Amino acid sequence: MTSHHSATPGDAPDSAAPAGTDTVPSTTTGALPALVESLDSPETIATAVSAQLEAFLAEKAAEFEAISPDATAIGEALIEFTRGGKRIRPVLLWWGFQLAGGEVRAGTSNGAPAGPMTEASADVAVGLAQAAGSLELLHAAALIHDDVIDNSDTRRGRPALHRQFEARHRTSGFRGDGASFGVSASIVIGDICLALSEELFERSQEVLGDSRSARELRGTVRRDVMVGQYLDVLAEVIPLEDERIADRAWEVLSFKSAKYSVEQPLLLGAALAGADCVLLEEISGFGLPLGQAFQLRDDVLGIAGDPEATGKPAGDDIREGKRTVLIAETAARISADQLGVLASRLGDPDLTDTEVAECVDMISASGGLAAVESFIADKHAHAATIVDTWAGGDASAVPAEGSTASARVRIGSAAQERLKGFAKALSYRSS
Amino acid sequence: MTSHHSATPGDAPDSAAPAGTDTVPSTTTGALPALVESLDSPETIATAVSAQLEAFLAEKAAEFEAISPDATAIGEALIEFTRGGKRIRPVLLWWGFQLAGGEVRAGTSNGAPAGPMTEASADVAVGLAQAAGSLELLHAAALIHDDVIDNSDTRRGRPALHRQFEARHRTSGFRGDGASFGVSASIVIGDICLALSEELFERSQEVLGDSRSARELRGTVRRDVMVGQYLDVLAEVIPLEDERIADRAWEVLSFKSAKYSVEQPLLLGAALAGADCVLLEEISGFGLPLGQAFQLRDDVLGIAGDPEATGKPAGDDIREGKRTVLIAETAARISADQLGVLASRLGDPDLTDTEVAECVDMISASGGLAAVESFIADKHAHAATIVDTWAGGDASAVPAEGSTASARVRIGSAAQERLKGFAKALSYRSS
Repeated sequence: MTSHHSATPGDAPDSAAPAGTDTVPSTTTGALPALVESLDSPETIATAVSAQLEAFLAEKAAEFEAISPDATAIGEALIEFTRGGKRIRPVLLWWGFQLAGGEVRAGTSNGAPAGPMTEASADVAVGLAQAAGSLELLHAAALIHDDVIDNSDTRRGRPALHRQFEARHRTSGFRGDGASFGVSASIVIGDICLALSEELFERSQEVLGDSRSARELRGTVRRDVMVGQYLDVLAEVIPLEDERIADRAWEVLSFKSAKYSVEQPLLLGAALAGADCVLLEEISGFGLPLGQAFQLRDDVLGIAGDPEATGKPAGDDIREGKRTVLIAETAARISADQLGVLASRLGDPDLTDTEVAECVDMISASGGLAAVESFIADKHAHAATIVDTWAGGDASAVPAEGSTASARVRIGSAAQERLKGFAKALSYRSS
Repeated sequence: MTSHHSATPGDAPDSAAPAGTDTVPSTTTGALPALVESLDSPETIATAVSAQLEAFLAEKAAEFEAISPDATAIGEALIEFTRGGKRIRPVLLWWGFQLAGGEVRAGTSNGAPAGPMTEASADVAVGLAQAAGSLELLHAAALIHDDVIDNSDTRRGRPALHRQFEARHRTSGFRGDGASFGVSASIVIGDICLALSEELFERSQEVLGDSRSARELRGTVRRDVMVGQYLDVLAEVIPLEDERIADRAWEVLSFKSAKYSVEQPLLLGAALAGADCVLLEEISGFGLPLGQAFQLRDDVLGIAGDPEATGKPAGDDIREGKRTVLIAETAARISADQLGVLASRLGDPDLTDTEVAECVDMISASGGLAAVESFIADKHAHAATIVDTWAGGDASAVPAEGSTASARVRIGSAAQERLKGFAKALSYRSS
């Protein structure tokens, strides 16, 4: 067994210490930090980000069409695809900026100023929405390729992109194999989406001022999610008895999801506000455990979620063969015979509902499920404690090892409530 | 029929007019241009670029390994894959820099200074090699995904990357379907390669000084090759009788290859040297027709190339079903019956050698092959004329329409010889 699940803020990830901070907008470096009274609401942030994203994609769609009328479908598909996101990463990027002392108010760029904002503030809101939109495009690209890799049929309640292009092949009377066409088109459109993500990020840098620290973090985000994806692909073909099963599950969980979905968006936002290494590490201490709780919950929902709430069949992750921490914790607790059964069923898309249910029972009865619930509780509590510390709460509750003596982030009660509500929702959601 | 094949330098592509030039190293903007006596040799450039590329990939491979020992294969595969390139794009980028007046000598960064160079020149050589290496990584990413899309078995004399990972699946005793694993791993590794291409380009910008014009061109390169790739995927499933067959073939030829492989590397190099719009357009007047000749030759070799020289079976493009300009020119010249036969055979991997040979005969007998040879001759002559003009030759030979009255690029006889030799080799190579 590993001790990854007891990671503390002292386990500073590489990404928390980029090689320098040379950017500027509203930084708090060094001096006593300003109190962050409140954070923008997720809804306002999502609106601002969606507006920038749609404007950018409309512009790009026109460029594609100018190259060839046949390329029109690319822009249409991307506009449609990116409309469906939950915008978790944009919200976290925005809050990271605000937590690090960056001055911005969502809504100021949309003709609905939330107070006496200057023109510069509106520019910052645009640039930040572009940076956040860039993360959404990176995520869309990852999902498009993910769905090809997992041979998934649906995404965000619609057919997966490769299925959409397969259908287009059929309705257009194209020649050859429709499934292959769908896959080929989706590989290329995922690549285009990745390229657009770069472009939108570059645009944000022109507005916000070029930040080497943010650029480096951006590179780390890209790298980590992709390497995490490779490890995930690999994990599914390695025998369940392999001794690195738990290590690998934690690597995939951390790099493909926890860092990429929660910790790194926060850090990127903070870096855009000019945060230094110490501040980034402090934010990481909140973001990494919360990201881990977020993905551990995903693992639990994939096995024991209510199909009504998740929209996915019960035990969906069994048929998909995902090698989650939950599977690793189960594998460590069952007999060799049981392990043989589980190994033979994981990843078999043709399992009966009864066979799936037996696996789910095994995972639950083994104590694996309870172990993961306990990890989630720990990770969530850890993240919540950090928030309380930022709000001037019980400082002694902060783990001593490796962390700074006193909090650099300082927040008011409205921001505290916002962060804790979000952390709880990520850790204990039912869908 | 279209008139794409009669494109002149007056047909300025979008990419030739980016929105501003704010970079600096050794520009010639406005003033009378300096005479470019000679251009570095392709061999010296390739050596400098390979050194930077290998150093960068070794550094990244170590990062991947630090994330997980299981990720070691990613770095190894990329180092191996990028070793095999012909470095055409790096050479053209380097020459674009030199033609625009940028001062650099290949070899100055490798401990073998070619004269009394300053430390700053060595830095420029490093930065330029990184920018060129970034193009090689973009190309490698495109090839990795291309091979998945085309279901190709080999690349650069070795198994295609997805076949390598399929073999790894077999030898490692992994579970599940090896072919799927190979495809999944290659999609992800192609994505990683794309991300590394961005990172190496950013690094070059830190050395050379940030250039908005170069950044925008870089975005255009990425976009054009990917949209061209989408159009290529689409072309293969559209019936041969479609009225846009010729337009589409020229679009794929120009965007997926001519611009990306020849014109844009030259322009990117020139932009890195601080070239303004007028200078970029002038270089484009040479690069675009040469790029078109380069790809038209590729089309001819794919049908009528000598298997001994190309290393590919005779008529390979027939079985692959590529919709080249050569196919479009043939389709416009044959009877409805013949078109039916050609349509039924294109893209059928199981054709007999006799069936392939019949198609090749049809392409030749129809006059399609001769038409394309004539396009090549025109394009090549056009590019060669521009070179002569730069060398102070017969200025009246430059097409008048839309082009500037006098050449901004000025080259000596050594550079003239180098460029003409390269243009001839690209247009009339046998492999």
